[in-house]
Amino acid sequence: MSDRGLLIVLSGPSGVGKGTVRKAIFESNDNDFQYSVSMTTRKKREGEVEGVDYFFRSREEFEQLIETGEMLEYAEYVGNYYGTPLSYVQQTLDAGKDVFLEIEVQGARQVKEKVPDGVFIFLTPPDLQELKSRIVGRGTDAPDVIEERMKVAREEIEMMALYDYAVVNDEVPNAVERIKKIIESEHYRVDRVIGKYIRMLKEM
Amino acid sequence: MSDRGLLIVLSGPSGVGKGTVRKAIFESNDNDFQYSVSMTTRKKREGEVEGVDYFFRSREEFEQLIETGEMLEYAEYVGNYYGTPLSYVQQTLDAGKDVFLEIEVQGARQVKEKVPDGVFIFLTPPDLQELKSRIVGRGTDAPDVIEERMKVAREEIEMMALYDYAVVNDEVPNAVERIKKIIESEHYRVDRVIGKYIRMLKEM
Repeated sequence: MSDRGLLIVLSGPSGVGKGTVRKAIFESNDNDFQYSVSMTTRKKREGEVEGVDYFFRSREEFEQLIETGEMLEYAEYVGNYYGTPLSYVQQTLDAGKDVFLEIEVQGARQVKEKVPDGVFIFLTPPDLQELKSRIVGRGTDAPDVIEERMKVAREEIEMMALYDYAVVNDEVPNAVERIKKIIESEHYRVDRVIGKYIRMLKEM
Repeated sequence: MSDRGLLIVLSGPSGVGKGTVRKAIFESNDNDFQYSVSMTTRKKREGEVEGVDYFFRSREEFEQLIETGEMLEYAEYVGNYYGTPLSYVQQTLDAGKDVFLEIEVQGARQVKEKVPDGVFIFLTPPDLQELKSRIVGRGTDAPDVIEERMKVAREEIEMMALYDYAVVNDEVPNAVERIKKIIESEHYRVDRVIGKYIRMLKEM
C-alpha cells in the first residue's frame, strides 16, 4: 500500500550468520526485495559483470562520491573501497520496491544517519539469550575470561540499541521467517501508508 | 523474550468487522493472548458469571473507579457504563502475557493516553484502498453525496493517524494473519527486549 519501498538493513556482530540468513531470504521465492549492488575500487575479475557483481569505479571516482555524500555507507578493506551507492538505493525505493542490505555494523550505523526511516534488524547470536550462563559459565572460569565475555556482551547490546528489531538466529529458517514477518508488518505501519490516503483526498 | 506482555488494541470505524476478526483470532489455536474481561453496571443476566462474562459493579463503584483513574477506557450506552478495568490489564501484562482489546475508537483513544507503548491496530474497510473510485463513484452522483463520502473518508483517515498499524479487512483470514504477524514482530522490537539484556548484565 505504501508508495515508496522500504530500506531493510540486516546487520549484527561478526560471525552471527548474516550472510547465510540473507542468502536464505533471497533463495525463497516469496520475497520481493531488490539486491543492492555494491560499488568497489578493486579490479574486475574474470567473469564479473559491471552493475551485476559490482559497480567498478576508480579510487578517485569513489572518493568523489564519498565527498559529495553519494555513498550510503562504505568501508576500506585491504586497500580497496567497498560500499553502497545512494543513487541505486534511492531509485529503487522511489520505484516502490524494497531494498535489502546485509552489511557490517559500521555500515549500518552510516545508513541509520542517512535513512533513519529504514527498517534496522539486528541479528543476535542465540547465546545472547542465555547471557548469564554464557558469561558465568560453569563457575570455574578465571575472572578475566568472565570480564572479557561481559565486555563482548555489553558491546553487542550497545550495538543492538541502534536497531528497530532484534532477531535471534537460533535456526536459519526461524530467523528468515521472523525477518519476513517484520518486513510485512512494517508495510502496515500507519506512518508509511497514511500519506497515500491524504494525497488521494487532496487530489479530488 | 520481553518480560512484560504487550497490550494490543484492535479498533476501527464501526461496521468494519472488528468483532469478527477478534473472534477469528481467538478461535485459532496458535495465539497466546489473554481476554480482557469488561466491567459493566448493567444487571447480570441468567447464566452470566462474574469475572468471566463481565465484572458486575454498581454505578457508584464504577464512577469511583473512573474518578481514581482505574478504568483504562469506558463509555456509557443506554444508561449503563461499560469499560476495561486497568488492574486486570496491568496484572496480566506484568505476568508477561499479552492482552488483546477489541474496542471502539473512542475507547482506543483513552487507552492510547494511558498506555502509549501499546500496539494500536486500525482495521480499515477494503474500500478505503479504493478511496477515489468509492468517493467519485461513476461520476453521476450529486455533489452533496460526494461531499458526504469525502467527510467519512477524512474522518477515517484522521482516526487512523492515532494508530501504529493499518490493516485492511478485505478477507477475515487475511486480516487475522496480518494482525498475528504484527504482534509477533512487535515482540522483536529492540526497545521491548533490550531492557532485559541490560538488567541481566547489571545483575552479574
